[in-house]
Formats: sequence, structure tokens, C-alpha cells
Amino acid sequence: MGEAGREEYKIQSFDAETQQLLKTALKDPGAVDLEKVANVIVDHSLQDRVFSKEAGRMCYAIIQAESKQAGPSVFRRGLLNRLQHEYQTREQLRAHSMQGWVCFVTFICNIFDYLRVNNMPMLALVNPVYDCLFRLAQPDSLHEEEEVGGPAEGCGGQQPAPVEWEALEGITFQVDCLVLQLHRVGEQLEKMNGQRMDELFVLIRDGFLLPTGLSSLAQLLLLEIIEFRAAGWKTTPAAHKYYYSEVSD
Amino acid sequence: MGEAGREEYKIQSFDAETQQLLKTALKDPGAVDLEKVANVIVDHSLQDRVFSKEAGRMCYAIIQAESKQAGPSVFRRGLLNRLQHEYQTREQLRAHSMQGWVCFVTFICNIFDYLRVNNMPMLALVNPVYDCLFRLAQPDSLHEEEEVGGPAEGCGGQQPAPVEWEALEGITFQVDCLVLQLHRVGEQLEKMNGQRMDELFVLIRDGFLLPTGLSSLAQLLLLEIIEFRAAGWKTTPAAHKYYYSEVSD
Repeated sequence: MGEAGREEYKIQSFDAETQQLLKTALKDPGAVDLEKVANVIVDHSLQDRVFSKEAGRMCYAIIQAESKQAGPSVFRRGLLNRLQHEYQTREQLRAHSMQGWVCFVTFICNIFDYLRVNNMPMLALVNPVYDCLFRLAQPDSLHEEEEVGGPAEGCGGQQPAPVEWEALEGITFQVDCLVLQLHRVGEQLEKMNGQRMDELFVLIRDGFLLPTGLSSLAQLLLLEIIEFRAAGWKTTPAAHKYYYSEVSD
Repeated sequence: MGEAGREEYKIQSFDAETQQLLKTALKDPGAVDLEKVANVIVDHSLQDRVFSKEAGRMCYAIIQAESKQAGPSVFRRGLLNRLQHEYQTREQLRAHSMQGWVCFVTFICNIFDYLRVNNMPMLALVNPVYDCLFRLAQPDSLHEEEEVGGPAEGCGGQQPAPVEWEALEGITFQVDCLVLQLHRVGEQLEKMNGQRMDELFVLIRDGFLLPTGLSSLAQLLLLEIIEFRAAGWKTTPAAHKYYYSEVSD
């Protein structure tokens, strides 16, 4: 954070005009339509999984820049309003595009991670983030069949699927998303509401113990996150060796 | 410990004569053949799972009593020699009687737990105990098929199987034994040799992730012990609620 001036944000996947808009938003937020900027960022996040993973940092930088100009927080309000809208219509999004849905969860978790009030996560986002993770931990999300037979269009259906999605087809990318988000924001979420985290892990254990349906990769991912949380949101050296080292034999 | 005088040892399952022998060994060890006492205790442990779980406490008391009389540690030497013999022939025992094998593992772990030198576990027992636990974590031990089709005779084939064994048939009592021992002595074992514990948990995770063959109960038992160790050999409140509470819905 605090790197707004260095413009280290990966905005290459935007068209040239939008890149200029974003650069200006970071440098001189008062000079652009910040509600439009918020919508541009959310739209792109729903279509680009790589961007959705790091959009929060740029959003935070724009909010900081806007606050320095003592403006009325147009960007922040626009961003949260749009997030709320997408959250409320998430089941439609999920039905329409599994990849858009996963992008949305990635994005909202990233926003939760970066946007802070008095250095605390935003209370208003805690339950929406939990709701998304609970959805990912439902049996129909954990089972790979759904994904394998799922829609093949790009996120939002507006542009071709990025190449990396192709590689994920056939594995459970909802499980992948679930454990990725828990690695990033699980500890913070638990601090904000421990009971819901307990309930989420009941779902995860239950899903893991389902007699059929979970791929070996999904099982491995869930086992790793169960250990990770049990160890206090840390990877023990032994677990690191087991889950992250190349297989030697 | 230090309760030798109170004779709180469950020796009701011995015949009257042997009960008297054990009582004397605890009160006046010099008055009996302590090598015979050691053999009686090991023999009984291999046949009685309940006794094998707590024999270590009585052995410790006899050793303490013998040391007070400044004797030459006949009991301790007899016990360890006999344990070593059973350890060396453990594969025959296992082939002959799965229940005797499980009794033996329970017993050696209990001895490891209770017999201490300068308040430290006995170094000589660390690897034998690990070897036994590794055997329990092999795929053929983790899979229930072996147990279901296993021998139905009592431990050691010398007396009818205790009733509780019957209830265990059809579930993986080797897994049950493995997790029970890890709950009791896992933390101490890890302190004595962390690398072997890492290796043991590689086996456990691998076995757990086998695509077929493990019963739901075996999976649950293994998942619990994985969480237990990851949490620093503790049961977290959330894990306790999940694994040990009655199912409410």
C-alpha cells in the first residue's frame, strides 16, 4: 500500500483509453468520473481472474488519493454500491457464468483484504464474504461434476475465457477459489466472526468426507486448508513439504 | 503415579492367584518372581485390550517399588526384554492375530507413556513405537477390508475375544488404535523425533487421500488426528464440537 505514485498496478489487460482513465484516477482522482472508474474496475474484475486477485490494492490507492483531495468519497461509494448489487444478484451470476462467479468471489475477498477503516476490515463486508465462501463450500460446488459440465464462456460471457481457465476445466475451480480466499483472508474473517468460520469448516469437513465425488485434487486442497486453519492460519514446515514440494518418488 | 499403595489397578480380569501375585509385586516386589510378573503382564496385555491401555501405570508402580528395595531391576529388565521379543516378532503376531497385534501396539505405547528415565520417555522405545505406528498407517492397515475379513479369534487365540472387539468388527480398528495412540503419545514422540512424525503424517495424509477403500469412520478418525496435530496436539473447541458432539440435525 502507499504505492499509488509508483503505479505498479497491472492494467495492461485494459484498453489504452481505460488505462489512461485508471492512471488519472490514481494521480488526480478529481479529474475523472470516479463512479465510472469503479464500474470499470468491477466489470473487468468479473472477467479477468488475474486482475480480480489484485484489484483491491488499486482500489485502496484510488480511495487514498481521493481522500487526500478531501472529496466526497465518490469512488468508494460507487465501488461498494456496485459490489452490493453484484452480491445481491450472485446466484444469477453463478447460474449464468461459473467463471464470473469465481471472479466475483475473488474480487470481493480482495476488496475485503485491502479496504480498511482504522486499519480494521470493513464490518459491512464480513457477512457478504462469508456468504460467498459458504456458497463455495456447498456440496454442489465442491463436486467437480458441476464444473466439468459448466459453461465454457468467458467470465460474464463478454469476451473469450482467459487461457488459464481452460487449464482449470476438469478440476474444481470453486474449491481452488475457496481455499485461495481462506489463505488470504481466513484469519481476518475468523477474528471478525469466529462462529461463522466454525460453521464454514463444518461444511468443508462434511464435504471432504462425502463418500464420492470429490476429486483427489479437491480433497488435497481441502485437507491442506483444514490443516492450515488448525495450525493457526499457518503452514507448518511439515505441511509445506507435503503440499507444496515436488513429488520426489 | 505414586499410587502403588492404593492398588487402583484393574486386575479383576486376572485369575485369583495372579491377582495375588500382582498385589504382592506392588507391595513387596522382592517376595515374588518379578520376571514371571513381567511375563504375566505382557501375556495378559496381548489378550485384553482394556488392560493393555493401562498396564503401563502398574508397570511403573512395580518398577518404583522395586527401586525402593534397591533391587537389580529384575522386573524392568524382564519387561523390556519381553517387549523387545514381541516387537521383533510383531509381523508373525499380526499375521496370527490382528487383535493381538493391536493389543501389542496399545501396550508398547502405554509403556512408552509411563516408563520414564529422569522424567523423559525411554529413548530405546521411540523407534519401536514409531515402527508400530508406521505399520498401522500402511494402506493395508488403513483399509477396512483387511479387518473385516481378519481372524475372529481372541487376542493371541488363547481365550474368547472380549465383547468389545465384536463391536469393532467391520470398522477399522487399526485406524482406531493408530489415532488413539497418537492422541496419547504423539506429542512426546514428536519431541523425541520430529522427522519420523512428519513421515508418519505423510503416510496418514496419503492413506486418507486414497480414492477408495477407507470407510467414512476411518476418514473421520484420520481427519481428526490431522487437525489435532496441526493444532499443536490439541483439540480446538471447533474441532471438539465437530468430532465429539452428538449430531444434532
